[in-house]
Amino acid sequence: MTPAQTLMIAAARARLGERAVIDDRELIAPWLTDWRGRYHGQAPAMLQPADTAGVAAIVALAAEYGVALVPQGGNTSMVGGATPPSDGSALILSLRRLNAVRSVSQSEGRAVVEAGVILADLQAAADARGMRFPLTLGSRGSATIGGLVSTNAGGTQVLRFGTMRRLVTGIEAVLPDGSVHDGLSSLKKDNRGYDLDQLLIGAEGTLGIVTAAALTLVPGIAVRAVAWAGLRSPEDALALLRRIEARTELVESFEIIPGDTLALAIAHVPGGRSPVVGTHRWHVLIEAASGDPQADPAATLETLLANAIADGLVADATIAASEAQAAAFWTLRDSLSAAERATGPAAQHDISVPVPAMPRFMIEAAAAVEARFPGTHATAFGHLGDGNVHFHVRAPAGADPARWYAHDAPVATRFVHDLVVAAGGSISAEHGIGQMKRDELARLGPPSRLAALRAIKTAFDPQGLFNPGKLVSLARDLPAT
Amino acid sequence: MTPAQTLMIAAARARLGERAVIDDRELIAPWLTDWRGRYHGQAPAMLQPADTAGVAAIVALAAEYGVALVPQGGNTSMVGGATPPSDGSALILSLRRLNAVRSVSQSEGRAVVEAGVILADLQAAADARGMRFPLTLGSRGSATIGGLVSTNAGGTQVLRFGTMRRLVTGIEAVLPDGSVHDGLSSLKKDNRGYDLDQLLIGAEGTLGIVTAAALTLVPGIAVRAVAWAGLRSPEDALALLRRIEARTELVESFEIIPGDTLALAIAHVPGGRSPVVGTHRWHVLIEAASGDPQADPAATLETLLANAIADGLVADATIAASEAQAAAFWTLRDSLSAAERATGPAAQHDISVPVPAMPRFMIEAAAAVEARFPGTHATAFGHLGDGNVHFHVRAPAGADPARWYAHDAPVATRFVHDLVVAAGGSISAEHGIGQMKRDELARLGPPSRLAALRAIKTAFDPQGLFNPGKLVSLARDLPAT
Repeated sequence: MTPAQTLMIAAARARLGERAVIDDRELIAPWLTDWRGRYHGQAPAMLQPADTAGVAAIVALAAEYGVALVPQGGNTSMVGGATPPSDGSALILSLRRLNAVRSVSQSEGRAVVEAGVILADLQAAADARGMRFPLTLGSRGSATIGGLVSTNAGGTQVLRFGTMRRLVTGIEAVLPDGSVHDGLSSLKKDNRGYDLDQLLIGAEGTLGIVTAAALTLVPGIAVRAVAWAGLRSPEDALALLRRIEARTELVESFEIIPGDTLALAIAHVPGGRSPVVGTHRWHVLIEAASGDPQADPAATLETLLANAIADGLVADATIAASEAQAAAFWTLRDSLSAAERATGPAAQHDISVPVPAMPRFMIEAAAAVEARFPGTHATAFGHLGDGNVHFHVRAPAGADPARWYAHDAPVATRFVHDLVVAAGGSISAEHGIGQMKRDELARLGPPSRLAALRAIKTAFDPQGLFNPGKLVSLARDLPAT
Repeated sequence: MTPAQTLMIAAARARLGERAVIDDRELIAPWLTDWRGRYHGQAPAMLQPADTAGVAAIVALAAEYGVALVPQGGNTSMVGGATPPSDGSALILSLRRLNAVRSVSQSEGRAVVEAGVILADLQAAADARGMRFPLTLGSRGSATIGGLVSTNAGGTQVLRFGTMRRLVTGIEAVLPDGSVHDGLSSLKKDNRGYDLDQLLIGAEGTLGIVTAAALTLVPGIAVRAVAWAGLRSPEDALALLRRIEARTELVESFEIIPGDTLALAIAHVPGGRSPVVGTHRWHVLIEAASGDPQADPAATLETLLANAIADGLVADATIAASEAQAAAFWTLRDSLSAAERATGPAAQHDISVPVPAMPRFMIEAAAAVEARFPGTHATAFGHLGDGNVHFHVRAPAGADPARWYAHDAPVATRFVHDLVVAAGGSISAEHGIGQMKRDELARLGPPSRLAALRAIKTAFDPQGLFNPGKLVSLARDLPAT
């Protein structure tokens, strides 16, 4: 522990009480490693204030003593974004005690919740009032609102209601000078200069600590239909999506799955079976839902799928006959990553390209990777309607995992990222940059954009104390050229 | 003309040709005054490049020679945002020659257009493909996309599809270092750090020069219904809106109008007559529309209004029986400002408060103003559903206009703004800050927010060359304290 850290921790204890400061190494340990076990950090203490004023007090002390802070919610980052540096130079600032649902308004379609509220708890609070918070993802039982805002999280139901950016109407945050930015006012129109809320969304805690957010709620689901279809190609899948979109606005999910990856999931899930008969090269999972009990998304999907079969666009399709069957469909989708992981080491990439370019990219990029790295198997699945797939490169059979992760996977990753950039895409569609992709972001530029990111970071956080080492390197940390 | 300006103009002429530089004072004159004639500036030259590369070249020269630039599109700012400084220290950078519609895609619901494209021309280009760009406003025949993006423009049809911020999916802009930020890629998911597009939207040309934008298109209108209702109070109007919203998502406009202001408009418009019989204290204009020819918004509104009349919420209502009648309803709405102006001098305010607070604010703020400034008449009309009204304070009868505008109006304005801030509102809902509201923004803070705005401005534009004197004062321009 540095002398500055010692002084700051003592000041925080004096100011906020015993409970706000944890320095028991056993209690801190679970929060030093990311949930996938890839990143390991050190932190001499974890601060856990109970409210926004407490966060502001800690930030003011951090500025005074020059101590860095790593904000943390549910610790479910996919890119090491919430793991402290390994040199112990930063303290963890846990937002988990800020867990109040401040308000839920059905008439306004709006909830104001604190950063530490767990996504599943927000969903339950909305459900209890006949409303719904439409964003969801696998880690919903752990991920917190502050982290979801700070990473502009996506998930499997982005198609209709968008990512977090679209669902956030205002933010409360503590800025690096210790002041509280209050953007929760819920004004539908406000043109008073640069939009600080938008700047803080997706900033990964590098510009401010999000303490609360105002969020859009939509009417609760009255009826839903979950369908599964087997078809020939990603092109046909996108053509099917366009047909469906032309007919209804109710589609919330449109997930594409390769046949061989589905086979892994079926083997992985106890009692798993394919929703459709026969073998198909590609599958799609479609969900349509409505808050209007008189809507009939099942009938709409049924007609569309029947026509698509008649036209030869779809080989076979089915609509879940019960909620249990719908849940079974989703279990297969949600098991893809785990099923793939069980087959051996792989390099995973969360990437996006423009939607119309995605079908071709999926085929051509996979072929290019397999040609360049003999023995690998490249496969992509996920959110076709968002132009966002998870592109996995499986190591050759018998590869040594340690060697793969240390040497081969990074080479494959740079190759995949170069293909993505060539296709006009993004190397981070929904997971953020964190520490995992920081150097790749710096490598792939463009330089003027990186300069703008660094200028913003320096303007907000001149001491570099907010989530150091994540997202963007400060100019002073760059090698001299 | 300063020596630096002379050198830069010569360099621009050599680089971009004769046509890109206008220094004929008669040709420049129309662009030195805002359209309402409130602000008068000077500029030794007007630069008008033909494309993004030309804008980048001019910006690079401006940075090299230290010459300030005022970007200008249709020159329809309501807040003097496009008028150059009166000391001739800046050149006008006109974007009007960047007027290409680069692409319109029906299948993707997307258009890419250059900054100088006039709103009406974009609307026509969308119409020609069965699509619609849903944002509209009074100056649609002059206002350009670059200005609409840079001011996050609103208008009368924000309720369903939002302001420009919601409709912009990407931006191309020239940053103060002369580099081109290309955010047009149309990725639906992209989490590579701070969102520069969002930062440039509403920045009023102080951080970058928008040269093109990717915009969302929606299906063209197949059916629409325009209704008019007379009722007792803003509270009842909001209750009516909530009922309608609970039943249909198709409402695009919900405008509230006081009875006495409507009477002025009826007298002002040739052949003007009230859409409903009898005298009512308040009126609302409602528009609902759909791209689905099978939708029947007229029937929906008819049922809702009949029930509202039966319940005593609405006194009288009618639905336009023809497009001509619908247009007549809108003409009354669109004539309110002109009709008010014809009655004498007034102080106008574009303000917002949270929607649920607006009915009470309209009544109580008007009463407070009239009590504080005897003889004035305070009135508010506009976008109730957005929590945004135009709040006008008419001068007492017989007031001297020169004295009113020089002395009394600014005092009334500060009083109104104080009421807005007390209600948690914004002193600029949709018009922006420009030069008109810059000092009020600085007065009303909060200081930490102003510090953040200044830090961003300085980070992007350290020389202060982009639209100087607009939106935010740089730290160096502030009086020493």
